[in-house]
Amino acid sequence: MSAEIICIGTELLLGDILNSNAQFLAQELAKLGIPHYFQTVVGDNISRIHQVIEIAVKRSQILIFTGGLGPTPDDLTTSAIALFFNTSLEEKSEIIEDITAKFAVRGREMTENNRKQALIPQGAEILPNITGTAPGMIWQPLLNQDNHPQQELTIFTFPGVPSEMKQMWSDTAVPFLQKQGWGQEIIYSEMMKFRGIGESALAEKVNHLFDLTNPTVAPYASLGEVKLRVCAKADNITSAQALIKPVVDEIKTIAGNDYFGSNDDTLPLVVGRLLTERQETLSVAESCTGGGLGQMLTDVAGSSTYFYGGIISYSNQVKIEHLGVLPQGIEEYGAVSETVAKQMAKGIQLKMNTHWSIAITGIAGPDGGTANKPVGLVYVAIALPNQEVISHQLTLGVYRKRDTIRHLTCCYALDQLRRLLIG
Amino acid sequence: MSAEIICIGTELLLGDILNSNAQFLAQELAKLGIPHYFQTVVGDNISRIHQVIEIAVKRSQILIFTGGLGPTPDDLTTSAIALFFNTSLEEKSEIIEDITAKFAVRGREMTENNRKQALIPQGAEILPNITGTAPGMIWQPLLNQDNHPQQELTIFTFPGVPSEMKQMWSDTAVPFLQKQGWGQEIIYSEMMKFRGIGESALAEKVNHLFDLTNPTVAPYASLGEVKLRVCAKADNITSAQALIKPVVDEIKTIAGNDYFGSNDDTLPLVVGRLLTERQETLSVAESCTGGGLGQMLTDVAGSSTYFYGGIISYSNQVKIEHLGVLPQGIEEYGAVSETVAKQMAKGIQLKMNTHWSIAITGIAGPDGGTANKPVGLVYVAIALPNQEVISHQLTLGVYRKRDTIRHLTCCYALDQLRRLLIG
Repeated sequence: MSAEIICIGTELLLGDILNSNAQFLAQELAKLGIPHYFQTVVGDNISRIHQVIEIAVKRSQILIFTGGLGPTPDDLTTSAIALFFNTSLEEKSEIIEDITAKFAVRGREMTENNRKQALIPQGAEILPNITGTAPGMIWQPLLNQDNHPQQELTIFTFPGVPSEMKQMWSDTAVPFLQKQGWGQEIIYSEMMKFRGIGESALAEKVNHLFDLTNPTVAPYASLGEVKLRVCAKADNITSAQALIKPVVDEIKTIAGNDYFGSNDDTLPLVVGRLLTERQETLSVAESCTGGGLGQMLTDVAGSSTYFYGGIISYSNQVKIEHLGVLPQGIEEYGAVSETVAKQMAKGIQLKMNTHWSIAITGIAGPDGGTANKPVGLVYVAIALPNQEVISHQLTLGVYRKRDTIRHLTCCYALDQLRRLLIG
Repeated sequence: MSAEIICIGTELLLGDILNSNAQFLAQELAKLGIPHYFQTVVGDNISRIHQVIEIAVKRSQILIFTGGLGPTPDDLTTSAIALFFNTSLEEKSEIIEDITAKFAVRGREMTENNRKQALIPQGAEILPNITGTAPGMIWQPLLNQDNHPQQELTIFTFPGVPSEMKQMWSDTAVPFLQKQGWGQEIIYSEMMKFRGIGESALAEKVNHLFDLTNPTVAPYASLGEVKLRVCAKADNITSAQALIKPVVDEIKTIAGNDYFGSNDDTLPLVVGRLLTERQETLSVAESCTGGGLGQMLTDVAGSSTYFYGGIISYSNQVKIEHLGVLPQGIEEYGAVSETVAKQMAKGIQLKMNTHWSIAITGIAGPDGGTANKPVGLVYVAIALPNQEVISHQLTLGVYRKRDTIRHLTCCYALDQLRRLLIG
């Protein structure tokens, strides 16, 4: 029993979008222990989709399609599948009702085009789409002699919109697949996350663990953090977790405070947890990040218990009038300076009456850099509950892009606060 | 003449990495005007790689492999290809010399494993790798009777490391491909972007254009906007642009103000352009979006000329003390109400002395919703230069995720401001 992922869409062949759906589904199949050996991408072309199905049914027993379920004429997935299996399509009234209701909520009327989305092959089950209009299907077609007579075949279709696909996968496909008992050894992993250490420096520290075979340890780098994936194969989750634990513990000891969390942990989540434990509060004053730090903090549901708010002081006038930055400080040292960052931090801490505050001022580029103050120069100041203000100068480099500099700055600021909070 | 992209690596099947190589190559093939209809991903398994080649040679004439060129036993690409074409491998001394030199620079000695990377099929040409140790190849194998006798076949192999692959592609493969004259017409497209109209409603309005063959018109949906891609094939860019123009113009006429820009245009960029033209300024007051609107606005380099800043009023206290929201307004109507949104907008406009301001208050979820005020209820208020304040109530639905609700709110707010700015 093995699965094949088939992604349909000319936009993939033109390189207009990145195939993140294939990665998500691959990870999910690994978690379920369902082997998968092939992925195929094909455009919105009925005869080529037909060819792809013909190949897939010979080598895979679970076909997972994404894309091509929309209301427009180039959405061909369902009809191509039905045609391949010589099965007629039938209109499902419950889908029509669902689409009509969704349009009504948005104050719109369902269009004639959308009727197409209500067609699924006879015998197929609807795979409901809670958020979008395109439902998918689960279908175990009866194969005729010419196609593939012996083996069973299960077909899933999902829309190409990643958020819809993911929710439908988790809500319906996962329980269905688990019930079939197709999973072999499960793969279970913990993604450990680090800040303040480079990938190669961390790799050197844990070098001896890279030779392990079960669990395996592998490094990953992403913007603003370094990760190690500790991954075990076992019959069940409990055994896998038992295999992983000693290795995870050893890495935690090696990494010390550079380790900040695992899996769904994020810097704002960890900072929020620490503030909640201490019953302390936070505010921010942002210049070059323009609200990005506030957005990261409020990505965490329930952050209002410790995050009061902040001021986006994108102009000097706002810094002076609303954060109490002294005009002579700006004149003498410039808006991007340690002095101004510290005054911003004190100003917002006082103004919003919080225990802690973070202030950021810098040059995100691509313009605005000078020889003395190049693009990527950023000051981060943190005001502590004890009246102290600590500041850091970052030189994030003239070669980095604006959004990268802004994101790295927010990550750095949150990590510095985290280190202060854990003492 | 068409190409096929074949990506080899078990890490892709496990979902450990995102297949950005396929996207890059797809974009590059489109630029060269070389059609490509299939992409395949397969693991590090010699018999399955064999199967994939067998299928590919029947339907494609240019096979582009990535991955599986490393020094370890699971790197099988070159040997699988040679085996398929019954061709023996030969060790290239220039590759051995190149690898030895690269190791020497790093103060290391070449390992025995790396010798494998010097093997390429007889008759193949080396595709040099400037930065890494794994060279690729360009090979036009002589096909035997059993495989695919009539047509010519060209094989490229590249390492899986994106930076190496990209450089090798540009340095060697592109000039080679251009010289062959395989590029048919070039593909040129304009991505038109819309707000305030659903994908299917827009599709219905431009339905008659979907039958065009050159240029083609195809819809795309992404979070917060709907897109139409108008795509022409022609001998050169000028001819392609000439083909596209009348269709783009027609769509603009049909869509009216729902069309907001093309290609790299974003809502904050368009809003910024309009504010700059009018020499007017903007501030924001954000509750549930927590800084996200400010971040979007300041994503645009140079936004400081029109965006002064804002207040993230995540707590009621901040709304009252720093935005002048009346406590009785919050008591009577709640913090998520039209009254409070309007007071926030007036407050920030006055405080930051800007022509325009946007205020947002809402329930982003997943908690905090009630029967009267469900998750997804958001008020957006815009204060105009003429003292007027316009407000909108959004019901973004209890089924949407926190980050989706927040993002859609920001897009909605920017679009409403855009519509007011264009009058």
